[in-house]
Amino acid sequence: MKIDINCDMGESFGAYKLGLDEEVIQYITSANIACGYHAGDPLVMEKTISLAKKHGVSVGAHPGFPDLMGFGRRNIDATLTEIKSYVIYQIGALQAFAKAQGLRVKHVKPHGALYLMAVEDEKISEAIVEAIASVDKNLIFVALAGSKGQKMTKIGENIGLRVAYEAFPDRAYTPGGTLVSRRQPGAVIKDPDMVAQRALMMAKEGKVVAIDGTEIPFSPETVCVHGDTPGAVNLVKKIKQILTEAGVEVTALSNFV
Amino acid sequence: MKIDINCDMGESFGAYKLGLDEEVIQYITSANIACGYHAGDPLVMEKTISLAKKHGVSVGAHPGFPDLMGFGRRNIDATLTEIKSYVIYQIGALQAFAKAQGLRVKHVKPHGALYLMAVEDEKISEAIVEAIASVDKNLIFVALAGSKGQKMTKIGENIGLRVAYEAFPDRAYTPGGTLVSRRQPGAVIKDPDMVAQRALMMAKEGKVVAIDGTEIPFSPETVCVHGDTPGAVNLVKKIKQILTEAGVEVTALSNFV
Amino acid sequence: MKIDINCDMGESFGAYKLGLDEEVIQYITSANIACGYHAGDPLVMEKTISLAKKHGVSVGAHPGFPDLMGFGRRNIDATLTEIKSYVIYQIGALQAFAKAQGLRVKHVKPHGALYLMAVEDEKISEAIVEAIASVDKNLIFVALAGSKGQKMTKIGENIGLRVAYEAFPDRAYTPGGTLVSRRQPGAVIKDPDMVAQRALMMAKEGKVVAIDGTEIPFSPETVCVHGDTPGAVNLVKKIKQILTEAGVEVTALSNFV
Amino acid sequence: MKIDINCDMGESFGAYKLGLDEEVIQYITSANIACGYHAGDPLVMEKTISLAKKHGVSVGAHPGFPDLMGFGRRNIDATLTEIKSYVIYQIGALQAFAKAQGLRVKHVKPHGALYLMAVEDEKISEAIVEAIASVDKNLIFVALAGSKGQKMTKIGENIGLRVAYEAFPDRAYTPGGTLVSRRQPGAVIKDPDMVAQRALMMAKEGKVVAIDGTEIPFSPETVCVHGDTPGAVNLVKKIKQILTEAGVEVTALSNFV
Repeated sequence: MKIDINCDMGESFGAYKLGLDEEVIQYITSANIACGYHAGDPLVMEKTISLAKKHGVSVGAHPGFPDLMGFGRRNIDATLTEIKSYVIYQIGALQAFAKAQGLRVKHVKPHGALYLMAVEDEKISEAIVEAIASVDKNLIFVALAGSKGQKMTKIGENIGLRVAYEAFPDRAYTPGGTLVSRRQPGAVIKDPDMVAQRALMMAKEGKVVAIDGTEIPFSPETVCVHGDTPGAVNLVKKIKQILTEAGVEVTALSNFV
Repeated sequence: MKIDINCDMGESFGAYKLGLDEEVIQYITSANIACGYHAGDPLVMEKTISLAKKHGVSVGAHPGFPDLMGFGRRNIDATLTEIKSYVIYQIGALQAFAKAQGLRVKHVKPHGALYLMAVEDEKISEAIVEAIASVDKNLIFVALAGSKGQKMTKIGENIGLRVAYEAFPDRAYTPGGTLVSRRQPGAVIKDPDMVAQRALMMAKEGKVVAIDGTEIPFSPETVCVHGDTPGAVNLVKKIKQILTEAGVEVTALSNFV
Repeated sequence: MKIDINCDMGESFGAYKLGLDEEVIQYITSANIACGYHAGDPLVMEKTISLAKKHGVSVGAHPGFPDLMGFGRRNIDATLTEIKSYVIYQIGALQAFAKAQGLRVKHVKPHGALYLMAVEDEKISEAIVEAIASVDKNLIFVALAGSKGQKMTKIGENIGLRVAYEAFPDRAYTPGGTLVSRRQPGAVIKDPDMVAQRALMMAKEGKVVAIDGTEIPFSPETVCVHGDTPGAVNLVKKIKQILTEAGVEVTALSNFV
Repeated sequence: MKIDINCDMGESFGAYKLGLDEEVIQYITSANIACGYHAGDPLVMEKTISLAKKHGVSVGAHPGFPDLMGFGRRNIDATLTEIKSYVIYQIGALQAFAKAQGLRVKHVKPHGALYLMAVEDEKISEAIVEAIASVDKNLIFVALAGSKGQKMTKIGENIGLRVAYEAFPDRAYTPGGTLVSRRQPGAVIKDPDMVAQRALMMAKEGKVVAIDGTEIPFSPETVCVHGDTPGAVNLVKKIKQILTEAGVEVTALSNFV
């Protein structure tokens, strides 16, 4: 029983500080580091790699659209060739910072709109995994767990990448295994204990309770957490603690995927 | 008798085309590729690496300040930590594109204001060579030949990098071995034959005729050429031809530095 | 019988030159000036206003998405509030340059993806015209002529703006009055004489020959031309000449809309 | 006895929040609003204008260098023509948002490195005031009070602009009337009461106590405050309160300059 806890980090930019990276890093095993397109800048990337190194946290690239003003959350009608090149660029930039500090980039998780567009569009998933594989075949591709993410993960595996299934313990799932839309009531679960218990059930029993109460099989290798508020950090701490106490080994993806 | 011919390339951006890369690449041995900060974008980088591969031209990173509007030609009062991180970022981004096409980045030549500031300020040279060395100790650092560049090259060598001395055959030199300011008459030499002969004298005799007519010792490993106008491309062609006919081997830096 | 000839201008950026503005400006009556988001920069805007002033050409704002890398040609899933604010920002910036040279911005024509998204989506048209009207009720809104543009123009008129119907004499139209997709054969008409004749028929007879040969009523107030190649400039010259010789007054929108 | 309290505002960008604008706006009379170059974006500008309108606070443009990554705090070796065009662009953009909400931009205060470079270099001051005057002769130019700012203010007055002298009550002054460098001990005064008393002495007695204890004549029309921390906001509140209680009228520049 092993699971990874991942969190987006290094999303500050210049004078702008975003996220409680120094706090949340203590409780996670994989950091998805912004690469200067939707967020992050070279100085922030260097500091975040340094922070991850200090805490023994695995580092991954978190490439997004070149849209700082929209924080990479807006769909951009880029060509597949453009998308592929954006991903290569951003992974490479992060790799250099990792190399400079004696680390290796271990995984790639697309950010925001790029991630969601990839879930919906196989061609975009393909462009992303081709980019990743072209830079380093040993990189782990983090993809959405559940039925909606099946094509995405398959595309990653077909190209020969290791794929890690990602779940969101603070989000409700449909009986079909997809995320309940944020516009639905109950889509986001806020009670820290409940979120932690959901993470535990995923890790230990390979199941999740869907929004209608049915239990469905669900075995993510990594759960995504947030570090943008003190409350969010406490939630991460609780998840780590409950998993550990229950005998689940919380460890970086590269140790078991 | 060996010499390298380098040229800045990949400086187009989005819909904007700059430089006759497809023409000039036929006559050079090293391409300094813009990395998306002062010029270039991921798609352009990918295409430029591809073009270099096709023509067997060695590829290098050409990092500049994050100033697309000023094309990296304006001094920016960035901290040394910022400069170092900008160089790491840009080298890494280019390395990924090279890797994806089975090439390796072989050299680094700073661009525009960053290059000129490094010539003037040892601290900036240090920041740049530390950045380069931290990413890959095998990278060749391209630095200004002549008295003005001595500190810069020494800093590169001290850190353990191979350093290539760069000369500008179309620029007049003072008897002291520095570039004559562009504001002086005669600073830029326009006659193709004369420029080619100067390149040849540098390569074959290790000398250059200074603006006052005195011959001074001058042994660059690489000469810088331009590819922004049809005339410039013809000049490059002539330089290559005259060097080759005179028995000088025109070859990439990594083959002899 | 009056018609305006409009052309996108001021799309250079920093060291990047785009468009033969100095040539084409001689034959047009309205310049749509890029405002620094999809293209253009402050220096270019100043020069373009100056150029328009010298040639007595009317100036308009050509706002686009904040996507220099994609030249504003990619759909961006921005909110209506964002779009509105982008349009206000860009019009204002251009107005200041016009003011500084004793001119007034007379019209607004959205650029690229923003224009095309507005054609398809009434909400976006609304956001744009609200932005325009909030800055200056006297601005003329340039909208697509033909059936496809009817909603867009209606929205502009409803808010109290003067609307100018724009046609593309070098593009084929369907019998229903919409542009034939560029992917269809015959979508773009390249023969200068034919294009000029089409512009003349629109101006003089209020008709266009659709791709199937039927004549349909079609009365644009302005025709869009291009200035990106020497051939394109000659085409503009020809259009101007043929219209003038046929007794059509080629004059800026603000003189008759 | 009248004085204005100004504060930099609207420096958030996209997902990044900076400054406690909603708090500090209650105690100031002039907001210097970032215009999208060193900070701010169209949405933030719109909201900040709206906030200022709600609180009856006068709005001014706060133009800076196009350097979001450096927050406009780094000297950029731009030409005078570039600087002039940057200032025109940014003022215009803000004017449009003001116009859209029925307000007028009343003053201009350059930001960060642009401000400091203008203090040192008359040519830059000239470029800035020419830009301001070309857009609107009624704009008030906010310039550094004290001996160091004399040239800057003179340049503004010569061109026919109204000039407001700005002081920093939380900064120590030399007996010569210039700011003590931040690197000196005692350069920044942190005690809220002392800062408020200094502001009061400036407003009421036209004097400031220099760092060596001597009293020097010093009559600013506006004092600059900060709103980036809860402590800073409280300091602003205290300054406003002490000035008001002492019978000084705290009012926007345009009411008395």
